[in-house]
Amino acid sequence: MQESLTIVKVGGKVVEDPDTLLTFINDFSKIEGKKILVHGGGRSATTIAKALGIETQMVDGRRITDAETLKVVVMVYAGLVNKNIVAQLQAKDNTAVGLCGTDMDLVRAQKREVKETDYGFVGDVSGVNVSKLQQLIDADIIPVVAPITHDGKGQLLNTNADTMASELARALADHYQVELAFCFEKKGVLKDPEDDDSVITLLNRKMYGDYKAEGIISEGMIPKLDNGFAALEHGVNRIVISNIAGLKNKFSEGTVLKL
Amino acid sequence: MQESLTIVKVGGKVVEDPDTLLTFINDFSKIEGKKILVHGGGRSATTIAKALGIETQMVDGRRITDAETLKVVVMVYAGLVNKNIVAQLQAKDNTAVGLCGTDMDLVRAQKREVKETDYGFVGDVSGVNVSKLQQLIDADIIPVVAPITHDGKGQLLNTNADTMASELARALADHYQVELAFCFEKKGVLKDPEDDDSVITLLNRKMYGDYKAEGIISEGMIPKLDNGFAALEHGVNRIVISNIAGLKNKFSEGTVLKL
Repeated sequence: MQESLTIVKVGGKVVEDPDTLLTFINDFSKIEGKKILVHGGGRSATTIAKALGIETQMVDGRRITDAETLKVVVMVYAGLVNKNIVAQLQAKDNTAVGLCGTDMDLVRAQKREVKETDYGFVGDVSGVNVSKLQQLIDADIIPVVAPITHDGKGQLLNTNADTMASELARALADHYQVELAFCFEKKGVLKDPEDDDSVITLLNRKMYGDYKAEGIISEGMIPKLDNGFAALEHGVNRIVISNIAGLKNKFSEGTVLKL
Repeated sequence: MQESLTIVKVGGKVVEDPDTLLTFINDFSKIEGKKILVHGGGRSATTIAKALGIETQMVDGRRITDAETLKVVVMVYAGLVNKNIVAQLQAKDNTAVGLCGTDMDLVRAQKREVKETDYGFVGDVSGVNVSKLQQLIDADIIPVVAPITHDGKGQLLNTNADTMASELARALADHYQVELAFCFEKKGVLKDPEDDDSVITLLNRKMYGDYKAEGIISEGMIPKLDNGFAALEHGVNRIVISNIAGLKNKFSEGTVLKL
């Protein structure tokens, strides 16, 4: 029997507001067993970029990352947001370490090829250093992972945080019973974006296709779900999309993905 | 016989200029045995703060750290500068991990009491987590440490990088033969600031006192030397102050401190 490992991707308003961050940390601390936290920080990055006079450009929910924008995301994700989360986790007596994919070569990526869009210094994950991650997890250290990767030749790269979580889950699925939770400000995937209670409790590939065709599921939810289904296909045990309350109730609420 | 451990504090122009950083990384990579790298990043912090419209205020070479300045130093030291160094070290096949004092509770500090000056969120080191550091060092992982600490209650704090290096050296001196090198842009402590070759090759407490009284040693060099002598008194084997070339030549150049 493999040990269980909970990977929580937390993003959006949750980690960038001091109050919701504290609530989240409180609930995350109570999750039993081994765990990893992956976070974003896009809103802060956009705010800091704006204050520095750097224009933010998004294509299909992905940030175009020129050299100046890369500096901002490295500072904000791997610095400001990451160390703040770690400080709060340590205050709750968790042993946490703030890392990005560059540290110990944990997550290596390739700069995305220029096709229709030049995404700049955006990295598509090419490898996860499973043994180094295991070393940390098995020493009961909680890796807190910022979505910055590198190409192994000294170039830092910006990787989508949902993708980062999904790739870690897939890579670790051979060694642990992995549960992956995407925790954000909504209760789950909604049938009606205007109605916060219209949660789709179970979502399979077929339904996902139909909802997409109908325009019910759109925009930022699409990469999250694509990443979720990809992880499920690669042996991750359970994928849940929920808010902090769902986390508190051991992910019994929210949207569960099924193949 | 204890194993040797080299702790290099690198600061100033060395890590903030891409070319000198590469030269440094190259030479640092060649140091044999266990090692730790502690870095600053003050110039970048000042530049980013200025771009964000935050005024930098220094008292005796120490940065007054209000809430906004704290955000900047966390972003710049623990994010931008730290991850850049790690990416370059990884590119040279070193296993390096970028950390700050908050990670795994490595370095805890107390917010400095307000006396004549209110330094704001500045932390004076109160404890070093030796066993966690040993876990990393003994697994041949190079900790790359940014001078950010925490109070254990969720508050990040700004700590002087020279102090950070000195405190790590002192804490680890019971377990390793520690050599501490302060690597900066000058060849060593200079007798004449205008003459780069006027290196004081050996400096003891008495000479230090005399040079200070004569005004030969002043400003930013004073905290560096105070930290150096304190480390020497607490069992650190050897303290050298030099430039990158000194590093290359196994610290045979530069200023060596003696009690």
